[in-house]
Amino acid sequence: MNGAESLVHTLLECGVDTCFANPGTSEMHFVAALDRIPGMRCVLGLFEGVVTGAADGYARMAGKPAATLLHCGPGLANGLANLHNGKRGRTMMVNCVGDQATYHRPLDPPLAADTEGWARGVSGFVRTAKDAADVGGAAAAAVAAAQTSPGHIATLILPSDTCWRDGGIVAEKRPLPPAPRATKETIAEMARLLRNEKDVVLLLGGNALRQQAVADAHAIAAATGCRVLAENFCQRIERGAGRFSVTRVPYSIDHALEVYAGAKHVVRVGAVHPVIFFAYPGKPQTPVPKEARQHVLSLPEGDQPHDLAALAAELGAKSVSPPKTERPKPASGAVASAPIAQSLAALLPDDGIVVDESITFGRAFYPALATAATHDFLQVTGGAIGGGMPLATGAAIYAQISASGRRVINLEADGSAMYTIQSLWTQAREKLDITTVIFSNRKYAILLGEYSAVGANPGRTALDMLDLGNPDLDFVKIAAGMGVEGARATSVDEFNDLFAMANRRKGPFLIDLAC
Amino acid sequence: MNGAESLVHTLLECGVDTCFANPGTSEMHFVAALDRIPGMRCVLGLFEGVVTGAADGYARMAGKPAATLLHCGPGLANGLANLHNGKRGRTMMVNCVGDQATYHRPLDPPLAADTEGWARGVSGFVRTAKDAADVGGAAAAAVAAAQTSPGHIATLILPSDTCWRDGGIVAEKRPLPPAPRATKETIAEMARLLRNEKDVVLLLGGNALRQQAVADAHAIAAATGCRVLAENFCQRIERGAGRFSVTRVPYSIDHALEVYAGAKHVVRVGAVHPVIFFAYPGKPQTPVPKEARQHVLSLPEGDQPHDLAALAAELGAKSVSPPKTERPKPASGAVASAPIAQSLAALLPDDGIVVDESITFGRAFYPALATAATHDFLQVTGGAIGGGMPLATGAAIYAQISASGRRVINLEADGSAMYTIQSLWTQAREKLDITTVIFSNRKYAILLGEYSAVGANPGRTALDMLDLGNPDLDFVKIAAGMGVEGARATSVDEFNDLFAMANRRKGPFLIDLAC
Repeated sequence: MNGAESLVHTLLECGVDTCFANPGTSEMHFVAALDRIPGMRCVLGLFEGVVTGAADGYARMAGKPAATLLHCGPGLANGLANLHNGKRGRTMMVNCVGDQATYHRPLDPPLAADTEGWARGVSGFVRTAKDAADVGGAAAAAVAAAQTSPGHIATLILPSDTCWRDGGIVAEKRPLPPAPRATKETIAEMARLLRNEKDVVLLLGGNALRQQAVADAHAIAAATGCRVLAENFCQRIERGAGRFSVTRVPYSIDHALEVYAGAKHVVRVGAVHPVIFFAYPGKPQTPVPKEARQHVLSLPEGDQPHDLAALAAELGAKSVSPPKTERPKPASGAVASAPIAQSLAALLPDDGIVVDESITFGRAFYPALATAATHDFLQVTGGAIGGGMPLATGAAIYAQISASGRRVINLEADGSAMYTIQSLWTQAREKLDITTVIFSNRKYAILLGEYSAVGANPGRTALDMLDLGNPDLDFVKIAAGMGVEGARATSVDEFNDLFAMANRRKGPFLIDLAC
Repeated sequence: MNGAESLVHTLLECGVDTCFANPGTSEMHFVAALDRIPGMRCVLGLFEGVVTGAADGYARMAGKPAATLLHCGPGLANGLANLHNGKRGRTMMVNCVGDQATYHRPLDPPLAADTEGWARGVSGFVRTAKDAADVGGAAAAAVAAAQTSPGHIATLILPSDTCWRDGGIVAEKRPLPPAPRATKETIAEMARLLRNEKDVVLLLGGNALRQQAVADAHAIAAATGCRVLAENFCQRIERGAGRFSVTRVPYSIDHALEVYAGAKHVVRVGAVHPVIFFAYPGKPQTPVPKEARQHVLSLPEGDQPHDLAALAAELGAKSVSPPKTERPKPASGAVASAPIAQSLAALLPDDGIVVDESITFGRAFYPALATAATHDFLQVTGGAIGGGMPLATGAAIYAQISASGRRVINLEADGSAMYTIQSLWTQAREKLDITTVIFSNRKYAILLGEYSAVGANPGRTALDMLDLGNPDLDFVKIAAGMGVEGARATSVDEFNDLFAMANRRKGPFLIDLAC
């Protein structure tokens, strides 16, 4: 057995059976092993940012890691932005990066690059296999690292000779440490705080945003009068009609300050220390009021569902029902964020998976979707643009494998879409049930907003860098060129018709919405 | 003056007047400064791989660096693959990477990433500005580093507060050390070698591939009987009818071994130690015969044109005329590499700039183009896929700025095109004179070749990762979606007509050639 075969057997042994790939020359022994050994579903991406973002989307829905197959340092580099998002979202992923043969790298061939160094900034685990016998064990260690709570990017670098040489050894799945749970003392202390103090915020992140955990948080709120918030960037939120809706801390510092106003205590449940996305001259760096004290019920690596349930029990908090909401009617008229949000809430398919990278235009969407059919809500967690379409692709692969019939709704800003537009081809090839809505406002609207705060009215030079018109992008043509059918909508009514039709279809469809 | 203003003034002061940009929030003060201070041509790319590859193409033609404007760690990461190509091609470039404010980074906001660490693997110079007063001096140092022979990637990381704070100081252009020249002793020694030994190869790289240097190398060859070869990957070769044609060492190990067969001495002139692109089981790592001795006339950072001229003078080598070649007629019939190569040689516009990322289909092109009209020949120098279209974009920006009327011919494999397809939009926006020919063989042909050497016939899983059909990419539609006109050719005759027509036009045109 060669090293590549031991790699494939070990991944399968460890439960990793889906591989997003953009292979190159140095990975041919791995590809040949995948060909000989049944059991691995392989999905090709035409660009590595699609590959890593799709692996993230898959893992968020599957609750287990996918593998990626990347080609040398530059192939890894092309995937780094979405690995950054994955790291910030604490996703599970096992990158297999082919590289120069161990004995060839010292000669500095043209494609040799800083593969390990580039991997480190996004990975909780980096290992370069030493020889064929090392590959299986390293792969099992990588899977275990990826699955160690709360989830990590694990990067395994495979010099080509470690794959082609004989002597591979299949390694067994390693036992995983359980997610650490809050101690009785912590739970008692937080219960005391919630009973005795006013103006307490429960700040949810990670698995605290799954349905039962959110319900427990609201039981605690009903019993104690605390408020419940979610971090700005969340990996996955289970929500929609019949579930509790959690206010997310907004991106903008001014709005975030409003949401936290009056808070005296912030109890973090899987959330990190709140920090503003960028610093601005003269503005605070965190939206949490200075006088507020922060407490931790669960660290991100903790068992948030357990800890919230235990806290609710300690408080004797009775479960409460989420407020009844009414599904709105689709909106009508001219295109704007609020009416599109209303239409999305009206028409979202049951048990859909929403992937939101709608940036400025979509600010009304999250609140409005509280009244939509039940859905999972996924975000680009690290702020690296170009995460949405790959996330949608990977989530849809999981929906297809699990035969759940769930449809993915990708809400996508036009500027963001262009970073990883190659996703559409994978969606067509794999016949994925994805409705992509492109919000074509033909500018980097978020930057025009930031610019106006800095430099008055933009002149020609600034507009050249912030305006996406001239020429206008025609996403229907671009999609057609990659095998995805699409249509353009210029009013809310046209959008309603297209969106309802698209969601009834099988396979991908793209709506280019003039905003 | 704030730090951002001192940056723009310093870049202009140092002769950097073109900026390829994909800005983000943290760069708005820089954008505002560009807007207020005239003199910088700014070119937007919709993806950072376009930005860095275009800056490379610009620098190769302009002989001076462009600036890039990139957004934080993930923006830099998206540009790394083409920075790797630039590093290997020893291009000049000044990256300006906006980043978190100095005092905000310790709070680990979501977009914070390993910006410095990622930059290091591709940069000869990395500096993070400390405060506003540091920006100008750091920028001048970056430009000097970029221009120090043979050319370097210089990366300047600009925390946002170093840009927005007052106290910026404009720095002057720094004097550049001249490229080191071969000593008289080295020249005398190489002359003795060439006079006394048989089977000597002059291996050219870097500026040894400019017209006069190549002519001097051939004068030396005529006087001594040595052979002249070029490295496999060259930054820029001046060639075509009326100039000497230099055989390039082929990519494939077997062919490269044939080219070097019988060599007893290899004299490197700006070339690095020859090494095969990838190691293969049981094959040599360098194409140079074991018994051959290597010598250095010029290191890559040397002054190759001077050193070759001095060596020719030392040898008393008289200048010789390049062989007369006849421009072929366009070919006809079914599409294959050889007839398309013939048609390209027949129809290449005068003084064109050829950017070649045609990979397997284009192996006949380089030799055939020896009889074409004079042209510059640019390659993807580091083997990171996705360099061609951005290089073409940047070279065409230079052609436009210099009002030379030169047209860029981008010969592009379909698989490679998809990594940085967003280039087309910049080409449309800037009305660049580029003819792109996509060689649509609908597979990763290079990988199918490598696979057959490893794993017999590819099965379903392997084909899923190596085959680009299902669905077929329609590049004419994709181009139209980004504002570039195009047409499909299915025979050599159709290609001839489209290629001739495209080259007479102004602005970009794409030909999707069924291969």
